[in-house]
Amino acid sequence: MDIKEIQNKLAKFSAERDWDQFHSPKNLAMALTSEVGELNELFQWLTEEQSKNVDNDEIRQEIADIFIYILRLADKLNINIEDAVREKMEINAKKYPIDLAKGNATKYNKRDE
Amino acid sequence: MDIKEIQNKLAKFSAERDWDQFHSPKNLAMALTSEVGELNELFQWLTEEQSKNVDNDEIRQEIADIFIYILRLADKLNINIEDAVREKMEINAKKYPIDLAKGNATKYNKRDE
Amino acid sequence: MDIKEIQNKLAKFSAERDWDQFHSPKNLAMALTSEVGELNELFQWLTEEQSKNVDNDEIRQEIADIFIYILRLADKLNINIEDAVREKMEINAKKYPIDLAKGNATKYNKRDE
Amino acid sequence: MDIKEIQNKLAKFSAERDWDQFHSPKNLAMALTSEVGELNELFQWLTEEQSKNVDNDEIRQEIADIFIYILRLADKLNINIEDAVREKMEINAKKYPIDLAKGNATKYNKRDE
Repeated sequence: MDIKEIQNKLAKFSAERDWDQFHSPKNLAMALTSEVGELNELFQWLTEEQSKNVDNDEIRQEIADIFIYILRLADKLNINIEDAVREKMEINAKKYPIDLAKGNATKYNKRDE
Repeated sequence: MDIKEIQNKLAKFSAERDWDQFHSPKNLAMALTSEVGELNELFQWLTEEQSKNVDNDEIRQEIADIFIYILRLADKLNINIEDAVREKMEINAKKYPIDLAKGNATKYNKRDE
Repeated sequence: MDIKEIQNKLAKFSAERDWDQFHSPKNLAMALTSEVGELNELFQWLTEEQSKNVDNDEIRQEIADIFIYILRLADKLNINIEDAVREKMEINAKKYPIDLAKGNATKYNKRDE
Repeated sequence: MDIKEIQNKLAKFSAERDWDQFHSPKNLAMALTSEVGELNELFQWLTEEQSKNVDNDEIRQEIADIFIYILRLADKLNINIEDAVREKMEINAKKYPIDLAKGNATKYNKRDE
């Protein structure tokens, strides 16, 4: 997947509709939140087991919506998402060494800042 | 960016720590929600203008966290995120034709299901 | 509990700190979202069973934070929360008649608009 | 408003529909999140100024939904919400002394744990 290419398509889509006036990072964070709310709605009354076997078009679309907004937000803030993810994975590897973190929900449960 | 490669690294990271027991789609949706909450916190008292000029390490990390969890969730549900995004962009193009959607916050404001 | 009295105390608290400039309904909605994100974080890796037996000070504080922000938001919008809740409970009673809704997660799972 | 009375009505409403099986604290936190997502959706493309003049039935209903779920969650966890709110307001008064907090978005912006 070429992240930059998708971001460019999304930017073009927005520019053509004169929607950039609405797409401040603050507003995009709220739009992302709405989509995550819809994702929650699909899972809220399911057991964890049931949630594993859900694969319908609604969830597919919600995941796409969230993905689209996070790409758009990163683009608007000039954040290179590939670099950010790579860096975060290195931070997490140091923060959760295998021997200490193994099967450890208590530790895992602590705030991940 | 090779999405599948990142998903495989995340899967390995989780397996090594015996964390798959916690990573049901339902739980991953909640973890994603926590990260989106932290993103909101960074923007909540800023004006839209101020939000455009934020580029600090915290926001960078939150965006990475959200990206990581959405990739992980899609992987657990066997949803091909590239296909899902492509399909959703086609749906949006039909749903918001340029001439009708142009600069139109009212229409835009309607629920995007 | 006298809702209006709490709202007045919150309004005074904010006014004394010159925080009204930050408390637009839009911003309060984001602040509420941050708190709900923190609530999610406390539950995200717990099973449903485990979530029933949680009663620590953190959850207590998150619930208070959410309650405080929703009261503040209603106050800023001049919405009488007691009336709104009463009306919504009547709407729900009509929307989910006992005989149709009984034990019915599928029906219950539909969007509650 | 008699909080306990509303909580009892909500408990009866749920029991009559055999919905208690769905109302674990974990699930209620997700349901609350869905409602907060819908609230965000109503504000996401509005300016702060515009958000001050919104007073439609949708926002009224979302606020009621959020209020209902937070009362229900507190009830399920046996948390006295009146006490929790009073305690939290005392904590906030100590945490944000007037002379230091006045008009101070930077300080205010720090994580409220």
